[in-house]
Amino acid sequence: MSARASDDVSDRPGRPTLALIAAEAGVSPATVSKVLNGRTDVAAETRRRVEELLRTHNYPGPGGTRRARRSGLIDLVIKGLDSPWAIEIMRGVEAECAEKGIGMVVSQVGDHDARPPSWQNVAVQHHSDGVILVTSRMTRHQREQLERAGVGLVLVDPVNLPDGDIASVGATNWAGGLAATEHLVGLGHRRIAVIGGPADMLCTQARVDGYRSALERAGIAVDRDLVRYGDFRHEGGFERTRELLALPDPPTAVFAGSDQQAMGAYQAARLAGLRVPEDLSVVGFDDLPACEWMSPPLTTVRQPLEEMGRIAARTLLQLLDGRRPLTPRVELATELRVRGSTAPPHSSDAPERR
Amino acid sequence: MSARASDDVSDRPGRPTLALIAAEAGVSPATVSKVLNGRTDVAAETRRRVEELLRTHNYPGPGGTRRARRSGLIDLVIKGLDSPWAIEIMRGVEAECAEKGIGMVVSQVGDHDARPPSWQNVAVQHHSDGVILVTSRMTRHQREQLERAGVGLVLVDPVNLPDGDIASVGATNWAGGLAATEHLVGLGHRRIAVIGGPADMLCTQARVDGYRSALERAGIAVDRDLVRYGDFRHEGGFERTRELLALPDPPTAVFAGSDQQAMGAYQAARLAGLRVPEDLSVVGFDDLPACEWMSPPLTTVRQPLEEMGRIAARTLLQLLDGRRPLTPRVELATELRVRGSTAPPHSSDAPERR
Repeated sequence: MSARASDDVSDRPGRPTLALIAAEAGVSPATVSKVLNGRTDVAAETRRRVEELLRTHNYPGPGGTRRARRSGLIDLVIKGLDSPWAIEIMRGVEAECAEKGIGMVVSQVGDHDARPPSWQNVAVQHHSDGVILVTSRMTRHQREQLERAGVGLVLVDPVNLPDGDIASVGATNWAGGLAATEHLVGLGHRRIAVIGGPADMLCTQARVDGYRSALERAGIAVDRDLVRYGDFRHEGGFERTRELLALPDPPTAVFAGSDQQAMGAYQAARLAGLRVPEDLSVVGFDDLPACEWMSPPLTTVRQPLEEMGRIAARTLLQLLDGRRPLTPRVELATELRVRGSTAPPHSSDAPERR
Repeated sequence: MSARASDDVSDRPGRPTLALIAAEAGVSPATVSKVLNGRTDVAAETRRRVEELLRTHNYPGPGGTRRARRSGLIDLVIKGLDSPWAIEIMRGVEAECAEKGIGMVVSQVGDHDARPPSWQNVAVQHHSDGVILVTSRMTRHQREQLERAGVGLVLVDPVNLPDGDIASVGATNWAGGLAATEHLVGLGHRRIAVIGGPADMLCTQARVDGYRSALERAGIAVDRDLVRYGDFRHEGGFERTRELLALPDPPTAVFAGSDQQAMGAYQAARLAGLRVPEDLSVVGFDDLPACEWMSPPLTTVRQPLEEMGRIAARTLLQLLDGRRPLTPRVELATELRVRGSTAPPHSSDAPERR
């Protein structure tokens, strides 16, 4: 019996257990759970048989019939509430939820957070219909917990490649890395550094690969000294840029892994007595609202963060209605926004834009 | 009968209606509602009689006995989810809620928002136990709706002075305005401008009054040309600073109403060919995390925003437990943080800090 059912029997009289349906279908409870969660690794005939039993028994859940009674709540679980990046995604989720009359329960889970990750227990705690998880690591055990509770799941910008059948929303990070680097190459830069986020994150890998491809296409050898990794925050951009500027042959341009990192790069340049963009070009990633207000305004790769949040929410609500997404992985297009922080190397007449 | 009760009868068998208790006590339903919501404008004897009946009937709600069954959810309603200021408050509410095992449902309501303010219907929609409302206007009608639904209410930084008996959390805005202005006076500035938020907001009024008092204490006449109002965003600070710098006798220092406004002031200074702080000193308000990363780092008045969120949540949970706060209005101390954006007027050797 799922956690939800055992915890809230009163308003679902006669609800059959997952084990009972599994027994009737002649499959394991895990298989029923897979069908309920819209996973594709179930044989077509088995799926049909299980889905029919789910319908017959009026079993609630994504793969069964439309839930007789939903809580009208979804959980948005964010790694860091102090990240303006995550807040943009939250805005999109909230906008979509508000239109659909759904409540958005927000919680954060951190790598170094002493608190237990509450989203593991959301189904028990407040009967959420589903979870949107933003760049958090998820263990197989945690995922199974959500499946047992009959809670839907969508990932935004997952740290690792999710199993093929979990719905996820991201951006075209590789193309973004390519566009940012080609922009700098086009301005005449040859010593171009890249600062990624943590090296093990999927988005970092894709962006750095885009950077490498752009250099290779321009016939520029990749200098491993110019490829750095740090966290996505100001500090990461500040520290890595300081290291880069201290190299015997420092870069003339830095492609940062986030707009916050780019702000840190500005600071490192300023403390080294360098002007942006005359002495150092800087490109960010994200296009946060503050980019326009930096001095100078930041050239950056736009991720449609709010739209990513909206699509994550829309996908989750579809799953809850028992509709499988056309494709489990959606990647929205990134787009270069050229502002005032990039110029030809050692130029004295940098373009000024607002 | 309250909205909550009528909507969710099943799990509260035999729950008495508010009207029934009012009839037994010989008072109006509105009076019972007042007692339930911890308001002080009820005669002591009437309160005692109503509270006894609430206890006898085991009526759930703040003024009655502890609720037999709570939803474990509170609503955080924010005017703008795109405001980093509001996000800091949200972090505090989330931290407090996470510790107490409470879910935080986040929604936004805007002045120019076409969507209906969902918090009016929260009690009906997802059975929230209470609402924290951040700088939103609330009509008497809306408040009565929440009271009828038996939902607790705490305001953070209310736009207008709330009725004396609604719990609210703010910061010492007047003292902050005084400290910021005294800092600039102490550096030798005489032409000091202030940019407030919207003129009708309580916090704006308090800060501008603090500014006036500091000037008066220093024997400097207040020049009405130097007192401006705008929204709290970048644009507000940018536009007002542009106007100020275009005056025949422009200011040498600007005290902005928010850190975002201060970023806009930086931009206006830069486009006018002025350096911060050598040609123009700028003081912000809030102390957002980004202040340290502005170029130069921003001198600002710190509001303990996360702590304000925590205290708002704690106060709400107390109210829901039937405990009245010692004082309905809590103001947390502001504190000046001196960084690199302020210096003596027309100085060439500004202090550099990180």
